[in-house]
Amino acid sequence: MPTASGHTSVIRAKKVLGTAVKDDSGDEIGIVEDIVLDKLSNNIMYAAVSFGGFLGIGEKYHPLPWSLLKYDATDGNYVVSVTKEQLKAAPSYELKELTQGDGAAFRNAAFDYYKAPRYWQ
Amino acid sequence: MPTASGHTSVIRAKKVLGTAVKDDSGDEIGIVEDIVLDKLSNNIMYAAVSFGGFLGIGEKYHPLPWSLLKYDATDGNYVVSVTKEQLKAAPSYELKELTQGDGAAFRNAAFDYYKAPRYWQ
Repeated sequence: MPTASGHTSVIRAKKVLGTAVKDDSGDEIGIVEDIVLDKLSNNIMYAAVSFGGFLGIGEKYHPLPWSLLKYDATDGNYVVSVTKEQLKAAPSYELKELTQGDGAAFRNAAFDYYKAPRYWQ
Repeated sequence: MPTASGHTSVIRAKKVLGTAVKDDSGDEIGIVEDIVLDKLSNNIMYAAVSFGGFLGIGEKYHPLPWSLLKYDATDGNYVVSVTKEQLKAAPSYELKELTQGDGAAFRNAAFDYYKAPRYWQ
């Protein structure tokens, strides 16, 4: 089932990894570094997006709710409607931290921060 | 939350891609080529596993329910409890086919074939 953007609902992980992330004005602000998966619940927990170069914070990764990443089929990148100020204050971690424990603390912090609809009960 | 195998429930996609798949007797039978994600429902639809070399069928990929892949922390590979005969008769496709449409036909065929519990209603 194609979405409004013409992108179908199904995508391979390899096509997502390394994809550029732009803001609403079309500026490239980051890159999808990885996707964190929940083995037990069969869900995508969050994307791990690097905004390091843009924010000047080095090798920190932002857990982003998957639903926040809008695919732009024209340019082949993702668009995230957040401001630089929002990102600066957003939860960010070392990459290895993002798979520690069951990931729920990072997931909850990110979904709360971006006010994303929870996929879990 | 660690599973019985000691593996936590959370894993990064990059750690899964390219991982070997073994059968119950410890023989390497395939490799995880990709993971197919459902953008709209936030779910992992299936792993795309290559058993081509093992089965002698060339570049076909088997959609496998994510729950079928058991992580073996000792060897760092996945174990799938299926026989060669089962795999030979299992649904398999070209890689590009696996993301056509909404993927539901491939998902349903795979879950039915392996009698895997459905994650959807």
